[in-house]
Amino acid sequence: MSQPVPVTAAILVIGDEILSGRTQDTNTAYIAKFLGALGIDLREARIVPDVTAEIVAAVNALRVRYTYVFTTGGIGPTHDDITFEAIAAAFGVDVHYHPEAMAMMAARYKPGEFNEARKRMALVPVGAELVRNSVSTAPGVHIDNIFVMAGVPMIMRAMLDAIEPLLQRGAVVHAATVQTKVPEGRLAAGLEAVQKAHRDVAIGSYPFYREDGSGVQLVARGRDAVEVETVAREIEAMLQGLGAESSRVTSIS
Amino acid sequence: MSQPVPVTAAILVIGDEILSGRTQDTNTAYIAKFLGALGIDLREARIVPDVTAEIVAAVNALRVRYTYVFTTGGIGPTHDDITFEAIAAAFGVDVHYHPEAMAMMAARYKPGEFNEARKRMALVPVGAELVRNSVSTAPGVHIDNIFVMAGVPMIMRAMLDAIEPLLQRGAVVHAATVQTKVPEGRLAAGLEAVQKAHRDVAIGSYPFYREDGSGVQLVARGRDAVEVETVAREIEAMLQGLGAESSRVTSIS
Repeated sequence: MSQPVPVTAAILVIGDEILSGRTQDTNTAYIAKFLGALGIDLREARIVPDVTAEIVAAVNALRVRYTYVFTTGGIGPTHDDITFEAIAAAFGVDVHYHPEAMAMMAARYKPGEFNEARKRMALVPVGAELVRNSVSTAPGVHIDNIFVMAGVPMIMRAMLDAIEPLLQRGAVVHAATVQTKVPEGRLAAGLEAVQKAHRDVAIGSYPFYREDGSGVQLVARGRDAVEVETVAREIEAMLQGLGAESSRVTSIS
Repeated sequence: MSQPVPVTAAILVIGDEILSGRTQDTNTAYIAKFLGALGIDLREARIVPDVTAEIVAAVNALRVRYTYVFTTGGIGPTHDDITFEAIAAAFGVDVHYHPEAMAMMAARYKPGEFNEARKRMALVPVGAELVRNSVSTAPGVHIDNIFVMAGVPMIMRAMLDAIEPLLQRGAVVHAATVQTKVPEGRLAAGLEAVQKAHRDVAIGSYPFYREDGSGVQLVARGRDAVEVETVAREIEAMLQGLGAESSRVTSIS
C-alpha cells in the first residue's frame, strides 16, 4: 500500500504581546486541533516580534518546508500592524490597495470614517487573495501557501472557517488515551516495548499532577484507527501486567 | 549615555502534545514574564515535535542568536523523552550518567525501583551541569547558554527558580496600559504620532471583544520609566482630543 503524501503546516504567531507574556497565545492550540481534524500535520510553530526582518526570515524559512503556513497577528490599522508589508517583502512583491477590500470596507464605514489608517487594512501584497470572514470587514489574505490571519481569536477563528474549503486534506490522525496512576518510571520499559512493536503509532507519555491525585496519560496517535486501538489495548494489558488499574480517557472514534 | 547590551532569550518548546493541540502551552507566557522581571528580552519562541533532528536544528539556530535558550519538555523516563540526547547531539558531545544525578535519584527510590528508565533521567550531555529543583529529584541541566527544563509546569517553574541566580540581568522594561472604547481605526493616526515622537518606547495596540463591551488596550513599553509614563500621558491626551474617555489599566511602578 503506498503511503499518502502528508499534508503539513506551520504556524507563525506575530506579536510583541505574546513574547512579553502580556497575552497568552491560544490560537496555536486552536489551529492545531482545527488542522488535526482535516488530517493536516502541524509540524512547527514560531512566535516572533513585530519586527519586519524577523517576520520575513521566519516566513521564508517555513514556507519552503511545509505545505501551508498560517500566520496570526499584525493586520490591524495601527502602526504596529506590519504583517501585510512583511509578507510582501518575503515574496519580493509590492503592496497595493486591493480593490475588493477597499470596496467592502468603504461600504462598512460612514462617510469620512474610512480614513488612511483603516485603508491600511486593505493594503495587501500584490497577488494575494482575500480571506473574507463573518466577523470583521477587514480581510485576511492568502498568497501562495501562506494564510495571513488576525490575532484576535474570534476573528482568527472566523478566518480559519473561511480558509477551510481551500485546504488539501490528509488522512486524519486517530488518538486513544489510557490513564493510570502508575509512575512513568515503572511503566516506561513496557511502554517502549509496545512502541517498538508499532512504529506507525506514536505513543506519548504525559504525567499530570492534580490535587485529587497524580498520574500519567498515555496517548497513542496514528492514521490507522485499528492499529491505534490495538496499541491502546496493549498498553492496558501491559499496565494490568504491572498489577495496575487504568481507565480509557478517549477511544478512537 | 551608552546603551547597555541587551540580554536576550529564546524559548524552545519540545513536544508532540503541544503541536497536536492536546495540551495548551502555558510555559511560554510564564517564562516570558519571569524573564521580563529580570530585564531579559524574550525575542523568539519555537515549538518543535519529539524528533531529534528538529530539536538539534532549532537549538543550533537559537543558541548562536540569543544570550540564553530555555527548553521545556522531553526529559522524563519514557521513550519519547529525547531532549538530553538531542542537546548532546546539537553540541556534538556524548551523554553520560551524571554522578550527582545518579546519587540523588538512587537515594530517592526504594531498593530495586531505580531502574533503567529512571536512570535515563540522569543520562545528560557531557559537560552539562545539573539544575536541581524543589519539586522533582530528576534534574534539568544547563550547558553553555542552554537551560533544559521539564515540560510539566510545576516542575518547570521550580527549575526556573533554581536557574534565576545564574542569569545575567538587564534593564527592566516598564509598561503602562491605557484602555479606551475608541476603535483602533479612529485612534491610529494619533497613536502613530506619539510613537514617532518616542522611538525608545514601543507602543502596541490590542483590541478586545467582550460581552460587557469592546475596546482597545494601548500598551507603552520601554526601559526608561519616565518616558513610558510620558508616552502614556500623551496617549491619554490624544484620546481626550478625540473626545474619548480612557482609563489607566496599569501604570509604571
